[in-house]
Amino acid sequence: MRPSMRKNNQMRPVSMETGVNKWAEGSCMIKMGGTVVICTASVDLNQPVWKRMQHETGGWVTAEYSMLPRANGVRKTRDAIARDHRSAEISRMIGRALRSVVDMEILGKHTITIDCDVIQADGGTRCASITGGFVALTLAVQHLLNTGRITENPIREHVAAVSAGLWNGELVLDLDYEEDCHAEMDANFVVSESGRFIEVQSTGEQHPFEKSKLLELMDMAATGAQKLIDLQNQVLA
Amino acid sequence: MRPSMRKNNQMRPVSMETGVNKWAEGSCMIKMGGTVVICTASVDLNQPVWKRMQHETGGWVTAEYSMLPRANGVRKTRDAIARDHRSAEISRMIGRALRSVVDMEILGKHTITIDCDVIQADGGTRCASITGGFVALTLAVQHLLNTGRITENPIREHVAAVSAGLWNGELVLDLDYEEDCHAEMDANFVVSESGRFIEVQSTGEQHPFEKSKLLELMDMAATGAQKLIDLQNQVLA
Amino acid sequence: MRPSMRKNNQMRPVSMETGVNKWAEGSCMIKMGGTVVICTASVDLNQPVWKRMQHETGGWVTAEYSMLPRANGVRKTRDAIARDHRSAEISRMIGRALRSVVDMEILGKHTITIDCDVIQADGGTRCASITGGFVALTLAVQHLLNTGRITENPIREHVAAVSAGLWNGELVLDLDYEEDCHAEMDANFVVSESGRFIEVQSTGEQHPFEKSKLLELMDMAATGAQKLIDLQNQVLA
Amino acid sequence: MRPSMRKNNQMRPVSMETGVNKWAEGSCMIKMGGTVVICTASVDLNQPVWKRMQHETGGWVTAEYSMLPRANGVRKTRDAIARDHRSAEISRMIGRALRSVVDMEILGKHTITIDCDVIQADGGTRCASITGGFVALTLAVQHLLNTGRITENPIREHVAAVSAGLWNGELVLDLDYEEDCHAEMDANFVVSESGRFIEVQSTGEQHPFEKSKLLELMDMAATGAQKLIDLQNQVLA
Amino acid sequence: MRPSMRKNNQMRPVSMETGVNKWAEGSCMIKMGGTVVICTASVDLNQPVWKRMQHETGGWVTAEYSMLPRANGVRKTRDAIARDHRSAEISRMIGRALRSVVDMEILGKHTITIDCDVIQADGGTRCASITGGFVALTLAVQHLLNTGRITENPIREHVAAVSAGLWNGELVLDLDYEEDCHAEMDANFVVSESGRFIEVQSTGEQHPFEKSKLLELMDMAATGAQKLIDLQNQVLA
Amino acid sequence: MRPSMRKNNQMRPVSMETGVNKWAEGSCMIKMGGTVVICTASVDLNQPVWKRMQHETGGWVTAEYSMLPRANGVRKTRDAIARDHRSAEISRMIGRALRSVVDMEILGKHTITIDCDVIQADGGTRCASITGGFVALTLAVQHLLNTGRITENPIREHVAAVSAGLWNGELVLDLDYEEDCHAEMDANFVVSESGRFIEVQSTGEQHPFEKSKLLELMDMAATGAQKLIDLQNQVLA
Repeated sequence: MRPSMRKNNQMRPVSMETGVNKWAEGSCMIKMGGTVVICTASVDLNQPVWKRMQHETGGWVTAEYSMLPRANGVRKTRDAIARDHRSAEISRMIGRALRSVVDMEILGKHTITIDCDVIQADGGTRCASITGGFVALTLAVQHLLNTGRITENPIREHVAAVSAGLWNGELVLDLDYEEDCHAEMDANFVVSESGRFIEVQSTGEQHPFEKSKLLELMDMAATGAQKLIDLQNQVLA
Repeated sequence: MRPSMRKNNQMRPVSMETGVNKWAEGSCMIKMGGTVVICTASVDLNQPVWKRMQHETGGWVTAEYSMLPRANGVRKTRDAIARDHRSAEISRMIGRALRSVVDMEILGKHTITIDCDVIQADGGTRCASITGGFVALTLAVQHLLNTGRITENPIREHVAAVSAGLWNGELVLDLDYEEDCHAEMDANFVVSESGRFIEVQSTGEQHPFEKSKLLELMDMAATGAQKLIDLQNQVLA
Repeated sequence: MRPSMRKNNQMRPVSMETGVNKWAEGSCMIKMGGTVVICTASVDLNQPVWKRMQHETGGWVTAEYSMLPRANGVRKTRDAIARDHRSAEISRMIGRALRSVVDMEILGKHTITIDCDVIQADGGTRCASITGGFVALTLAVQHLLNTGRITENPIREHVAAVSAGLWNGELVLDLDYEEDCHAEMDANFVVSESGRFIEVQSTGEQHPFEKSKLLELMDMAATGAQKLIDLQNQVLA
Repeated sequence: MRPSMRKNNQMRPVSMETGVNKWAEGSCMIKMGGTVVICTASVDLNQPVWKRMQHETGGWVTAEYSMLPRANGVRKTRDAIARDHRSAEISRMIGRALRSVVDMEILGKHTITIDCDVIQADGGTRCASITGGFVALTLAVQHLLNTGRITENPIREHVAAVSAGLWNGELVLDLDYEEDCHAEMDANFVVSESGRFIEVQSTGEQHPFEKSKLLELMDMAATGAQKLIDLQNQVLA
Repeated sequence: MRPSMRKNNQMRPVSMETGVNKWAEGSCMIKMGGTVVICTASVDLNQPVWKRMQHETGGWVTAEYSMLPRANGVRKTRDAIARDHRSAEISRMIGRALRSVVDMEILGKHTITIDCDVIQADGGTRCASITGGFVALTLAVQHLLNTGRITENPIREHVAAVSAGLWNGELVLDLDYEEDCHAEMDANFVVSESGRFIEVQSTGEQHPFEKSKLLELMDMAATGAQKLIDLQNQVLA
Repeated sequence: MRPSMRKNNQMRPVSMETGVNKWAEGSCMIKMGGTVVICTASVDLNQPVWKRMQHETGGWVTAEYSMLPRANGVRKTRDAIARDHRSAEISRMIGRALRSVVDMEILGKHTITIDCDVIQADGGTRCASITGGFVALTLAVQHLLNTGRITENPIREHVAAVSAGLWNGELVLDLDYEEDCHAEMDANFVVSESGRFIEVQSTGEQHPFEKSKLLELMDMAATGAQKLIDLQNQVLA
C-alpha cells in the first residue's frame, strides 16, 4: 500500500487557481498534494536578444524554475539555490515542454517568461510546473490576443506532465516525496493533448530497468496527463 | 484624496495567515493591501558559525528578504535580485528589528532564520516582512518550547512596522506603491509593543524636511503599529 | 566622562584637504578624529546608461563607499569587502544625501561619481564620507562651470552629516569607534545648510528608545552639522 | 540517405585509446566520428565531504563534462562554458550512468572523479563521454585493486550510451552534428551490459512523438550499445 | 646529472602536429617531453569591442591559457582553474609574445584568439604554449590570406619560447617538472627569429642571482629557441 | 629631453612616511613623483591555512596590490578592479620579492599580509609597492620582535625595485606614466641590498630588444635601487 493510501494509478488531489498575481499577464498557483508552485507568465514586447542579433523571425517562450529557501524539510541557502544545476536542468525542461506546443511565428516578436517558484515541495515539482505553467502561458497569450498585439492563437494544443515510477516493486503514478526517495525507477512524462509524448525522462535509480516497464509507465502517464488537461480546460474556461 | 480613498491615518486591510508551510517551524503569509509576503522561520539547532568561532554564548536570529521575479510591474531577473543591495539592506533591517525583542541567552544555542519572500509588491514590503516575520518567529519559538529545546520564552515583547510619509502635502500612513512613487518624504518605523521605537528611517525624497514633520509621523506610526500588534496577538492566540 | 575626554556635544577635531588627487575633477581628504576618508569626484560627460535608455533628461550623482583592508583593527579580505552589504547600504545613503541638494536638470547630461574610500576607520565613516564627499562634488561642479560644460551651479545648498547616540546613559555627539561599540542608541543625521533634515536613521541597539530621545539628538546634530558646513565653506573659499 | 552515407542503424567509426594521461589513475580518449573526448579518472583516497558529514559508508563516483572553447564551429568563451547549464545537466547524467553499475560499499572510502573534456564536438558528446568514461573508471578501479586499496571489484557490469533519433522521417542511430541539428526527435540511451536501460531521455524537437517510435529506437540503441561494450572489453583486455 | 639524463643545454624531444581540430582556423598540438598543449586559433571577422569603441584601426591577437583538471599530479577543481591568477598571468604573456611579431594594421579588422589548453603538464607549459600557439596563429593567418580576407602577411617573424634555470648549481635548458620544483633560479625567454628578445622573466627562487648568470641563460635560450623555430618552419612548410 | 626634465639615470623625488595607519602593525606611504601607494602590513598570529594543512613549518609573507577607482586618469569600476588580472600578477610579484629576503623558519608561525593600495598612479606602481612594502614589512617584524613573539630578525637583507626602459631611443630610469605609454622596451628590476637580482621582467613593447640593452638597464637599475635602499634605512632608523 502506498504511504498516501492511494491506488497505484491514482494521482494526488490537484487544484489550479488563476489570477494569483496582479502584475503578471498570466498566473496560476498549482497544488498537487503537498506540492505548491506559483507560476507567472511575463510578456516582453520584444524578441529575446539572441533572436534579434541573428535576425530571426518569431517569438520565444522560456522558463525559470526555482525554490524558496524553506520549500523543503531542510532550509537551503539562497546562494545554493542560485547555483543549483538541478534547477537549471528543470528550467530547460519546462521551457522545451511549453515551446513544443507554441507556434513561434504566430506568437510574433514577443518573449514570454514563465517563472515557476516552488513555495512548498513534496515531489513532482517539475511536472506541476509544466502543468501550471501552461495555464499561466495560455492566460498571457489571451492577454496578447485581447490587447490586439496578436490576432491568432499560437498555442496548438495543451501540454501537461506527470511523474511515474517503480516503487516497492509496483508501478505507481504521481510519486510524492516519500515515495520518490525510495523509488527503484523514476520517470517524468510530458504529454500533449493529442496523447503523444513531448519528453520522456526515465532513470533506473537502483538498477537498470526492462523496456517493458517503461511502456507500462507511458500508458499510465498518458491517462494521468489527460486528467490534468481536463482540469486545465476547466480553470481556463 | 488618497488614490485608495483611505483617510490619512488609515492603513490598508491587513491579514495574517499562519501554518502556510508544512516544513517550516513557523510560517505566516501577511497581506497588506496588494502586498503579499510569505514569512517562514527555520530553526537550526546550532549557533551561527561566527558565534561558535568566537566562543560566544546564546543564539541568533537573522533574516533574508527577497522578491519573486514578477512581484513587481516589471519582471526582474533572478541575477539582478540576487545582487540587489536594496534587498540586502532590508534583510539587515528585518534582522535588527526581530533581534531587538529577543533575549539571545534565553534562546540558547539555536539559530532562527526568517525568510521573507515577497510574492506581490505594492508598497510597504519591508514593514510587512517585519510584522509577519515576527509571527513566524514566535511560532518557531513556541516549537522550541513545545519540543523542550528551551524552557523559557526569549521573546520580550511584540514588534511591528509601518510606513508613513508626506504625500501631496499631507501626512499619510501606510503608503501603497502609487503613493510611494510620488512621496515627498518617506519613513519607516519599527515600533515595540511598549510603544517605543526600535528603528526610525526617514528620507526627504524631494527636499529636506522639518523636525516637526517627523514627530507627527512618529505619532501616526505608533498608533498604526499598535493595531498590527493587536492583530498579531489574534492570529497567535 | 567620554573616553576621548570630550564634552557630550563636542565633535572630534575635523580637517578637510582638497586637491589630494591629481586626476580627479574634485577631491577631498577628510579627517574626523581617527577616521580618514579620501573622497574623489569623477565626472563622466554622459548620463548614466539607465537614464539614457529611459530617455530621461538631466544628470546624476552617485556614490561608492569602501574600505581598505586594514582600515580597521582586524584586516578584512578584499573579497569580503566587495561582497559587504553594509558598504552597499552606506553607498546608497551617501548618494541619496548628495543628490538631495543637486538640481539634476541644471547639472545637464553629466554623471558625477563620488568615491569614498576609508583609509582609517574610527567611527562615523558614513558621516565623514557625506561631509567630505560634498566638498569633492562641489569642486567637480566648479570644474564643469570653469570648462563651460554647464553655465549655472546645480548645487542648491550644502549638506553635512554627523552621528549622535545614547552612550552610557548620556546623549553624545559624533561617536568614535569605542563609544559606538557600546552605544545604547545609534543615529546618523544628514542635515542641510538650511537646518532641515535630509535623512534620519536611528536604531535602538540594546532596547527600544523614547521619541523624546530622538528629538534631543536631532537638535544636537543640527548644531554639529552647521559647524561642518562652516568648515566646508572655508576649504571651498 | 544520411549525410555521412551511413545506413540507418550504422554507428560512426569508434576508437578508444587508454593511457593518454600520465598522471591520471585511469584515462581514455574516445573518438566517435568527429567527436573526440578525453576522459580521465582521478582517485581521491577519501569519501566526498557530504558523505563524511552524514556519517555514510562507502565511496562515490562523480563526473564533470566540459568543452574546450573551440570544440565547436563557433568559439565559446570560457566564462560561458563555466556557466553553461547544459554542461551541468550532462555532468549529472554521466555521473548517474556510471554510479548505476558501481557498488559503493565495495568501492570503500574512495571518490573517483571522471573528467570528460570534449576536444572536438560533432554530435553525441554525452554518449561518448559515458562510454569512454566507463573505460577510465574501470582503469582507476584496477589501480585501486592493484595497489591493494580494495580487494574486490565494485563494478557490476559495463555501461555504454548511444544516441538515436528521427531524422528526415527515418529512425537513425548515432546522430552526428549535422543530423542532430535537423532531427525531429532526439533521444539518448544509457544501456547496461545486460541489455537493460539505465536512462532514457527522449525529446520531440519539432512535434510530439508516438510511443511506438520510442520503442523502435530503444531496440536500435540496445544493439548499438552492445557493440560499444564489445569494444570496451577489447581495449580493457 | 639531470633526472632526465639530458645534457645541460639539451631540450626535451619536441613535436608539433597541425590540423588537430576540424573547426579551428588554425591548430597545433605541441609536445615537449611530457608537456602536451593543444593550441587553436579562432578568427573573429571583427575588431575586439574595445578597439571599435575607441575608433582604432587594425586587428588584434589575444590568448587564453588553461589546464584540464587532471593535467597535473593532483586534480584541480574547475572553479580553482577559472579563478587561477597564474593562468591569467600566463595568458597575458602569451598574448604579448604573439602580438610582438604581428603587424596589426596589416591584419586588418580581425581578432584572432589563441586558446592554449594544457592536456598534460610536465614543466615549461607557458613556453610550449607560445611556440605551439605561433604555429596555430600562422595557420589562421594563412586561412585569412587563402580566403582573400587579407592580401599581405602580417606576421613579421617567428617567435618561440624556452625556459632555463639554475638547478643543482648548473645552468640548464628546458626544465621539466621535477627540475622546476627544485630550481634555484627560474627564467622564461621569448625569442624572435632574428635572435633578439621579446620577453625575459627571471626569478631567484631561493636567493638573489648575479647578473652574469642571467647572461649565460640568455645565450643558452637563444640557441634553444632557434631549434624550435626550425621545427616550426618544418611543420608549416 | 625627458618630459619631466630629468636626466636619463635620474629617479623622481621619493619619500616614505611610516606610521600612516594606526591599526596596522606596520605601515608606509611611499611617493615616487606622482605615484602614491599606501602599504600596510597586517600580522596574523597563525600560519596560512595551506601551510597548516600540509603540516609545514614556518611562516609566510603575502601581498595584495590594488588601485582606488580614481587612481588613474579614467575612473575604473570596482568590479573591474576586483577582476583585474594585471593586479593579481603584480600581487604575486610583490609577494615573491618580499619573501625572497625573509627566512620563513625564523619568522615562525605568523602570516604577514602586505596591502599595497595605489592612491594615485603615475607609473612605476609595482616598484613603489615593493620598496614601500618592504618598509611596512620591516616595521611589522619589529613589532613581532618587540612583543616577544619572535626573538630573531627573519629579514636577511633589504629589497627595493625600480623600473627602467628604452624611451625615445634612450635608456632611462624610473619611467613616469607619460614615458611608460611610449616606451619601446619596459623593464622592472627587483634588487637586493647585496646588489644582486631577485626578479627581472623585461618586455619589448614595440619590437624585440638586444641582449646588450638589458645589460645596460640592469646596471642603471642596480644603482637606482641602492638609493632607494639608503632611503629605507633612513626612515627605518
